[in-house]
Amino acid sequence: MASYRAPLRDMRFILNEVFAAPETWAAMPATQALDADLAEAILEEGARVTGAELLPLNQSGDAEGCRLEDGEVRTPAGFKEAFATLAEGGWFGLGGNPEHDGQGMPKQLTVAFEEMLYATNTGFALYPALNSGATLLLDSHADAVTKACYLPKMYAGQWLGTMCLTEPHCGTDLGLIKTRAEPLDERRYAITGTKIWITGGEHDLAENIVHLVLAKLPDAPAGSRGISLFLVPKFKVDERGELGERNALGCGGLEHKMGIKGSATCVMNFDGAEGILIGEPHQGLAAMFTMMNYERLSIGIQGLGLGEVAYQSAMDFARERRQSRAPSGPAEPEAAADPILVHPDVRRMALDVRAWNEGGRAFTAFVAGQLDLAKFHPEAAVRDQADEMVALLTPVAKAFLTDRGFEATVTAQQLYGGNGYCVEWGAEQYVRDARIAMIYEGTNGIQAMDLVGRKLARNRGAYLARFAAAMRADLAEGGDAEIADFRDAATQALVRLEAVVDGLLARAGDNPDELGAAATDVLELLGLVAYAWMWWKMARAARHGLAAEGASGEAFYRAKLAVGRYFLSRQLPKALSLEARIRGGAEPLMGLAEEAFYPVD
Amino acid sequence: MASYRAPLRDMRFILNEVFAAPETWAAMPATQALDADLAEAILEEGARVTGAELLPLNQSGDAEGCRLEDGEVRTPAGFKEAFATLAEGGWFGLGGNPEHDGQGMPKQLTVAFEEMLYATNTGFALYPALNSGATLLLDSHADAVTKACYLPKMYAGQWLGTMCLTEPHCGTDLGLIKTRAEPLDERRYAITGTKIWITGGEHDLAENIVHLVLAKLPDAPAGSRGISLFLVPKFKVDERGELGERNALGCGGLEHKMGIKGSATCVMNFDGAEGILIGEPHQGLAAMFTMMNYERLSIGIQGLGLGEVAYQSAMDFARERRQSRAPSGPAEPEAAADPILVHPDVRRMALDVRAWNEGGRAFTAFVAGQLDLAKFHPEAAVRDQADEMVALLTPVAKAFLTDRGFEATVTAQQLYGGNGYCVEWGAEQYVRDARIAMIYEGTNGIQAMDLVGRKLARNRGAYLARFAAAMRADLAEGGDAEIADFRDAATQALVRLEAVVDGLLARAGDNPDELGAAATDVLELLGLVAYAWMWWKMARAARHGLAAEGASGEAFYRAKLAVGRYFLSRQLPKALSLEARIRGGAEPLMGLAEEAFYPVD
Repeated sequence: MASYRAPLRDMRFILNEVFAAPETWAAMPATQALDADLAEAILEEGARVTGAELLPLNQSGDAEGCRLEDGEVRTPAGFKEAFATLAEGGWFGLGGNPEHDGQGMPKQLTVAFEEMLYATNTGFALYPALNSGATLLLDSHADAVTKACYLPKMYAGQWLGTMCLTEPHCGTDLGLIKTRAEPLDERRYAITGTKIWITGGEHDLAENIVHLVLAKLPDAPAGSRGISLFLVPKFKVDERGELGERNALGCGGLEHKMGIKGSATCVMNFDGAEGILIGEPHQGLAAMFTMMNYERLSIGIQGLGLGEVAYQSAMDFARERRQSRAPSGPAEPEAAADPILVHPDVRRMALDVRAWNEGGRAFTAFVAGQLDLAKFHPEAAVRDQADEMVALLTPVAKAFLTDRGFEATVTAQQLYGGNGYCVEWGAEQYVRDARIAMIYEGTNGIQAMDLVGRKLARNRGAYLARFAAAMRADLAEGGDAEIADFRDAATQALVRLEAVVDGLLARAGDNPDELGAAATDVLELLGLVAYAWMWWKMARAARHGLAAEGASGEAFYRAKLAVGRYFLSRQLPKALSLEARIRGGAEPLMGLAEEAFYPVD
Repeated sequence: MASYRAPLRDMRFILNEVFAAPETWAAMPATQALDADLAEAILEEGARVTGAELLPLNQSGDAEGCRLEDGEVRTPAGFKEAFATLAEGGWFGLGGNPEHDGQGMPKQLTVAFEEMLYATNTGFALYPALNSGATLLLDSHADAVTKACYLPKMYAGQWLGTMCLTEPHCGTDLGLIKTRAEPLDERRYAITGTKIWITGGEHDLAENIVHLVLAKLPDAPAGSRGISLFLVPKFKVDERGELGERNALGCGGLEHKMGIKGSATCVMNFDGAEGILIGEPHQGLAAMFTMMNYERLSIGIQGLGLGEVAYQSAMDFARERRQSRAPSGPAEPEAAADPILVHPDVRRMALDVRAWNEGGRAFTAFVAGQLDLAKFHPEAAVRDQADEMVALLTPVAKAFLTDRGFEATVTAQQLYGGNGYCVEWGAEQYVRDARIAMIYEGTNGIQAMDLVGRKLARNRGAYLARFAAAMRADLAEGGDAEIADFRDAATQALVRLEAVVDGLLARAGDNPDELGAAATDVLELLGLVAYAWMWWKMARAARHGLAAEGASGEAFYRAKLAVGRYFLSRQLPKALSLEARIRGGAEPLMGLAEEAFYPVD
């Protein structure tokens, strides 16, 4: 009962009208070949292929799940064929390095395709998502021979990458890992240990699987500064890139999970498996961080994609469902009851989902645009500034988008009444699939700690000051009196955020618990402020569109402004309570003795 | 991996120290036989039996679910035996009418047992929960012969009741039902129609199933005023109460649901099944409402029970899990890492769950106490006042407790990191089981409409004014300077609520959409204010306990005050954003044309 068409109109609006992305592409040598028409063609074909290949496998993939049989993992029926079709279309190398047969598309474009992947089939989407992260990592840190051997095949979906970080006793605190790497000769190492929660650790989609594994060398210093990164393929690869014998590693089990059942989440055992070192010894965690910003944004987009398909499916239900009468009297007196969208509280649910989605889509494009500037822009000053913006906003993109995505799926499910709880309608699957995004790729609490620690306190608010300056400059530009409410609300929210963060950083000097106590609320507050900025941008572009297009696109722009005003009136006010919570400080959290947390009857 | 012991210390605190329930029981003839010792014995035995019989079947019941085989429903392994044990112990007649072999226990006591049922096994708990509702309905509306025949067997769990309301095309709007009742003779009717989402519509737990069915008589007026209530047993029952032949009804299918998989959710087909009329013709909906307050409170307790077991299980995990170091430096330097509760953001999650649970437990006991006054108190004025309080607070009890219960299970799940998403740990089941409580027994949106429409606007705020007067009187009583913060916060929140509701009722006169637009936020705000009142009561009782007991119970009371301060500092501030949202009015919801909700391209 899923109903989904990629929101191409909105994607076009954001790319062309809100961010003028084609102008930026034209200004950077690496992206000069891309123009609005090509971008449009990619989005349209992306919408077609995900709709045709992945959407029909979403519910069946959830119902069937993955199976482990004699060490081999079978993905749900149809996944293998759909994977082959997308691989053949070049979709897994869309953002890849052109020097190794990638297509070099900027992130600001590929995020739209990622949204379609997650919306149509999150369980499936995770295989290419992890592969993208792995290729980014190799592209940045592997030597030329390794890149030439691996990247073209991984972009082609012939081989697929994984990330092997977590172990049973440690996820967040990777300094505790026990997996060992013993040198075999100058190039090769024997990797031994157990990794858990490995997405795509084993499957039947590709002819080889390329594991990127964190492990400790014999001389490793203790803690997180003693971690190295290794490439450990399922089948060994010779110098010419030909597949050799099976490596000494295997899938020891599949997790039984709440959702994303089409995604194989594996326990991986490495029993002296041969691998090669990627990057410098003991620099594995640092290397990992080069792709973290991309991966975390991607997981944020999981929240967005699921929010969008949840919205569209719920509206499909709402269109048919009739219960009771409008408060002001029958809207359709000849029918036995009115469509449920006559009820303000039903509209509240629908608009809540929609406003989070549209704000999230713009924010995603903004962060992706900054990633592109940081990577492709010819001027170092622009790159550095974009780098800072990315650093500041990545934890927000991961956590705020996934929290809102989960909320959106839960709210959309509520709109169905009892049908939302029944499997056949599909709404409950979106909730289950969205839930993991708040947990993996660094829990949302870890994102919040990263924000307040590394991105705010460590530089004494300098990143935030530059974010605020950029936002203020943008708020001063364009717009007319009709959308003064957008400007005013965004300005006020920003002022509040700055004051709250100033107070927090002052308190944090005396009490190291203060940052952690405020972390989640500060992240939410920054998220709201960033969305307020995005809504200003969208409102301005909508006004411009109304003036330019006249009646032809009017409905789209009017709806955009209406949804934006829902954000201002119903979502942004959460800032008030966040502010009060943050000002409450750490004492309400730390006042209870640890033993008092554990229940006694 | 579930860890649960019934929170007897907190239940005792609430009953004896916060509400002085034994004094109230002693003052009412119907409850005079109950004293603190007997209540304590019931709670202890309830904790024992639910812990021993139901908790071990919770995860297995979820994994196995119910099966439909040749029209018969098999509940998960062990359910039948556990059911028999609890039935034998008299647990299903705990609140039943003593004139028909019920045990006549007041609701303020039985809610504590209900919490244990839901906490240990929500899928199981729903069979007796529906039976309780059915017996309440029969006790209020059936004739003497029917009561004498049915009630003793239903209290004994020998026969079990269901409620058959919903049909495929209508849930909320019962005026649309199509099920027909044709008179066969003076007493009997033939019932024909299809009912869906019938909890316990068919199962193997009891020898007969007693369906209470809403249907329309041939001369029924249209809409909700034309609905009658019928008793339709699975096996016909003769005058002496003996079982006869199978009635013409059966289970046409089981729903595949997100959770509560141990509960059989049935499609029930009535094909001219024989039934008798309960109450007056066309008065079925009104009759149904006599037990609605009890059932809605019960579903609220589902949220509370799941929140509690989620908290305890998460703390069991937290006790063992070590990741990273405390912000102020290693708490346990000799270990590789510190227990996760050193992290303020982990404490935030734990305290959030706990504070909602403890506030909810007190609020539940408060509403239950009002139900008891309304039913048992000898003075009509007291009964009437309690009736009003119940009317006002029942939608809050249902919706606010289930929203918070769901939040609590989601937050508790987050505390596990990736383990929370894996089935074996049990945390994800609580989320799935809690989700339905926001939907059934009237969606939370319907509760909110009931609150602002029938309970606020219809009496022009009179119920709320009396609630406020009672709260103010209580805030003026007792307490010391140490807990002035509890009094001040509760007072301010109440003032805000009153102002917001005044404004809303004024606006609602001009615009019928205003009530619906504000409904959910007003319900949340009233919930927060009511919890603030409860925390005042608890803080006062804790101060009293500290003074009276000295060191012996100190840890409990100190923890209670600390958790209360978490509520004040971190949960109550949501009132600020709710207030702003409500003041935003209906326009942000109604400004978007209906067709603009439906996705294009």
